[in-house]
Order: sequence, then structure tokens, then C-alpha cells
Amino acid sequence: MNLFIALIHYPVINKNKEIIVTSIVVHDIHDISRAAKTFGVKKFFVVEPFEGERKIVERIKRFWQTSGKEYNSNRLEAISILSLQERFEDVLNEIIQETGRTPVIIGTSAQKKDFEEINFKEVAELLKKDEVVLILFGTGWGIAYEELGKVDYFLPPIEGIGDFNHLSVRSAASIVLDRIISQFKTL
Amino acid sequence: MNLFIALIHYPVINKNKEIIVTSIVVHDIHDISRAAKTFGVKKFFVVEPFEGERKIVERIKRFWQTSGKEYNSNRLEAISILSLQERFEDVLNEIIQETGRTPVIIGTSAQKKDFEEINFKEVAELLKKDEVVLILFGTGWGIAYEELGKVDYFLPPIEGIGDFNHLSVRSAASIVLDRIISQFKTL
Repeated sequence: MNLFIALIHYPVINKNKEIIVTSIVVHDIHDISRAAKTFGVKKFFVVEPFEGERKIVERIKRFWQTSGKEYNSNRLEAISILSLQERFEDVLNEIIQETGRTPVIIGTSAQKKDFEEINFKEVAELLKKDEVVLILFGTGWGIAYEELGKVDYFLPPIEGIGDFNHLSVRSAASIVLDRIISQFKTL
Repeated sequence: MNLFIALIHYPVINKNKEIIVTSIVVHDIHDISRAAKTFGVKKFFVVEPFEGERKIVERIKRFWQTSGKEYNSNRLEAISILSLQERFEDVLNEIIQETGRTPVIIGTSAQKKDFEEINFKEVAELLKKDEVVLILFGTGWGIAYEELGKVDYFLPPIEGIGDFNHLSVRSAASIVLDRIISQFKTL
């Protein structure tokens, strides 16, 4: 299964809709790695332009590769699919290098986008047809998609009961992966 | 909908299967509150016997009720369903006081339990019939169910692709709530 995901720290927006770079949140790295590994994701890309912030991710990786390994070997397994990148283009290049193909790029957002939508089952069907799929998750107040450039489709926002849908990116990524893989298993 | 959830910090086990008390993880409080609020949970109980640890939760609540309110009012909304308790019995008492009924207590675990199982759809059906349901989530290496006492059913472990299913409790709680509410909406 050629499923890839990326957590974007730039370009994202802040609450005033300005384009910013966000810093690394340690729990994002752990939780999303663990969910990605659980749901068969090939690589979990973390896009972070600031070198100092990337060093935090490298330190987390190194911890689980060395002293943390004995304490909890599962974390090493989860973190082994993590790929740290400076720019979004580097993600695309790595996927092309690894698979020989350009991925179908799928955006996620807590707000409904006026753009071509794809549902969870259709993503599962793409994966079943051995397509290369990259799903994007944002930090801050969400990805600045105009700045990021090309996205092929958007998944619908995750809706619960009522108007409130302010999930953490850790929760949203877990739910999105669960929904796609649950559909994938029925195909 | 009478759906309640509880995050248990005692009695839980450590990696050597000893019964311990775990400390509060700030991201648990935020992420699970936000997911609970999204999926229509009436109250999110945090069970923590240590007073010093409970103070951390109180401080988080107070932050979003005061200086954090202007920065992000969604967090206040999410945290407003949080109920901090010293013991598991206090959770049951509060639910009985609030609803007049004893809840159906449903355990979760990353390992399959040799106990009566309930699936996600059946939980949704209980909720549809206006039953009071309490779902338990563990910290550490999971809840010490023998020590906790009465559980009526277990949900099956969340399975992805392959053997790895080491999700964070934040991811697991989000997925469990999404699965139940997705079923609930189809009834």
C-alpha cells in the first residue's frame, strides 16, 4: 500500500490568517508516528523549515534509537517511518524517488473547502488500485493551501455531533487513517 | 445522548504489570476534551488519586477559563465537559446523580480480552435506546481491570494493518468515539 502522510509546519496560518512557520510539538511526532505505523503508512513526513526545530525531531528519533530502545521498542518501530524534510517539495521528491510516481495529493481541513472533494472510501479505492497517495495535515490554524501549491482533492472535515469540531491534529490524523483503512479492509 | 468517558490514572499497570498511579499528561487532557466535545460526550472524567496531579488539571482548566479564553475560546468549550475525580467510584456516583441510572461500563484495551465483547455498532444502539454508557480509557500500560472492579463489556482492540497497534490513548479515544458516533448517525 502506497500511503504517505505529511505534517506541515510551513506554510500554515495563524489565527489572524497570516502565513507562519509553526514549531514542533513533541506529541504530534509520537502520536502520528504510532497511528501511521498502526495503519500501514509507508512514510510519515514532517515538514519543518527551521533547523533548530528539526533538531528537536532528530533528538526524539535519536532517543528511541539509543537509550529509549530498551525502555520501549515499539516507539522505535513507529518512529522508523518518520522522514524529516525542510520543504514540501522535498516530500514530493522523496516519494517520486521511492515509488517512481507522483502522488495523488489530498488535503485535510476542519473547514469545508470549495474544491474537489474525495471521500474516505474513494481514497481506499485509490490505494487498492496501487495508486500513490499523500495526505496532508496542518499545524497552527491549518495549511495555507494557496501558498503550498498543488492539491488534487480535499477530504471532508471530520464532523461529530453538533457544531464543535476543533480536534487536535493528532486526533484528526488518527481518525482519518482509521476511516481510510477501515474502508480499505472491506475492498 | 448519555455518553460518558473516563481517563483512568489509577488503577493502571506499568510495563512490568505492577499496579501504579500515572501522572497527568497535559496533551491527554486537551486532546480528549476536544474529541469528547466534538463527538457529543456529556462528561469527560479524569480519575487521578494524587492531589498534586489533580492540581495540574485544575490549573489547565483555570487557564482556559481566564487568560486563555480570549486567545482560544474553543478550548474553554471543550474543557467545560471535563470532570476531575479522585476515585473511580466518584465517577459512578456523579453519573448516577446526573442521570439517575447506573451506566453500562465498557472497557477498552489494546489487547483482546477474554470477556464479553461489544462492537461499536452495539454501543451506538445502546446510546440510541437512551442507555447511559461509560467508556474507560487507560494510561500507562493499560487499566488494571481486576482491581477496578465491574466492567460490563469490552470493545475490541483497534486494529490497523499488520501487528502494530501501539496507539496513544489520545489517538485511541478519538478513534473509538468516531467509530461509535459514525454508527450512531446511521441509526
